[in-house]
Amino acid sequence: MRIGIIGGTGREGRGLALRWARAGHEVILGSREPARAKERARALGGSIEGGSNEDAAGAGEVCVLAVPYSAHADTLRGLAGALEGRVLVDITVPLRPPAVTVVHLPQGRAAALEAQALLGPGVRVVAALHHVSATHLEHPERAIDSDVLVCADDEAARQLVIGLVHDLGLRGLDAGVLENAVALEALTPVLLYLSRTHKSSTGIRITGLPPPAASEP
Amino acid sequence: MRIGIIGGTGREGRGLALRWARAGHEVILGSREPARAKERARALGGSIEGGSNEDAAGAGEVCVLAVPYSAHADTLRGLAGALEGRVLVDITVPLRPPAVTVVHLPQGRAAALEAQALLGPGVRVVAALHHVSATHLEHPERAIDSDVLVCADDEAARQLVIGLVHDLGLRGLDAGVLENAVALEALTPVLLYLSRTHKSSTGIRITGLPPPAASEP
Repeated sequence: MRIGIIGGTGREGRGLALRWARAGHEVILGSREPARAKERARALGGSIEGGSNEDAAGAGEVCVLAVPYSAHADTLRGLAGALEGRVLVDITVPLRPPAVTVVHLPQGRAAALEAQALLGPGVRVVAALHHVSATHLEHPERAIDSDVLVCADDEAARQLVIGLVHDLGLRGLDAGVLENAVALEALTPVLLYLSRTHKSSTGIRITGLPPPAASEP
Repeated sequence: MRIGIIGGTGREGRGLALRWARAGHEVILGSREPARAKERARALGGSIEGGSNEDAAGAGEVCVLAVPYSAHADTLRGLAGALEGRVLVDITVPLRPPAVTVVHLPQGRAAALEAQALLGPGVRVVAALHHVSATHLEHPERAIDSDVLVCADDEAARQLVIGLVHDLGLRGLDAGVLENAVALEALTPVLLYLSRTHKSSTGIRITGLPPPAASEP
């Protein structure tokens, strides 16, 4: 599958690109500075290309939005046309630096809900990947002890992204409708607080589920 | 310690009472119908008494609020005087039945924040125990595979409740300031969704923490 990563030159974007490329996907890293994205893509190697954010948005059936919350709305406004018809995986956490260990509810309750409101029904927004640290992603050989909760109003888009999460080497779990992005995004400051308190890198696991199928990580 | 449980005759309250009584605490189950609370307390046995919600609120250094969200504000208004000076553990999840698998943000962002605003600074509100099902609590011999995130603005109250969570046979984790109750409360509908989807009883574990001290469950 072709996957575009908007704001893809940051650590999170590069980690995702590395793992998806290893799983056989084609990845387009987008950036406001296409030359930088091309350089980063070359450095990562494999089936990873670089380009503008418009290139990333227009390239794949699935696009990932990996920009800081401060750039969230402006970035989406600029790309609304290019994203039409696609699945957009919004991994944004609406942090309010420097208080990144305290929940901050944005005006639209969740960044992903704001994205859906801004883009309209022609784009299927999926919220996911809020609880996986870039530190872990960028070492593709490293097993990550964390589940990925995935929510969206569109059932097919949700299942598609759960599959892509599996390709990252993680267990993706259906977490319901997009409104539930409120819980997923709000949990990240709590994990950042726990990570800071314990000088560690924390994640979450859902317990009490039936045993996973043999193919699941 | 003496612990009052407001709305304590429900399954959650009775499960907490059983486990705390086993750990050597005195528990007062409160109810709008004191006769019912006395009957339930007798049935549970041990160091558990029954009484009115006012009795429960006035009895212990620590009180637990275990009423449905629909009764949350009214219950607190009626008990504000009795609760003055105490630690109140608010375990309320602001569900909006029948849509209990969809996040519902109350007007004050979290039930616990609404409680603190309503009671004022003379009561130290702690949010905890949103992710442990009554089904597990009421079998005190059963190990529960879930962590308990605990948040409060008052550090001493937070630590006190983490200790009480330990006495339930669970790992309590400091989750920061009371504002973070937004994340804790919002996660419950997601867990209810997962439980319903998988016909199971789910919980959460925080991963990536340093190994626990030998005494922790």
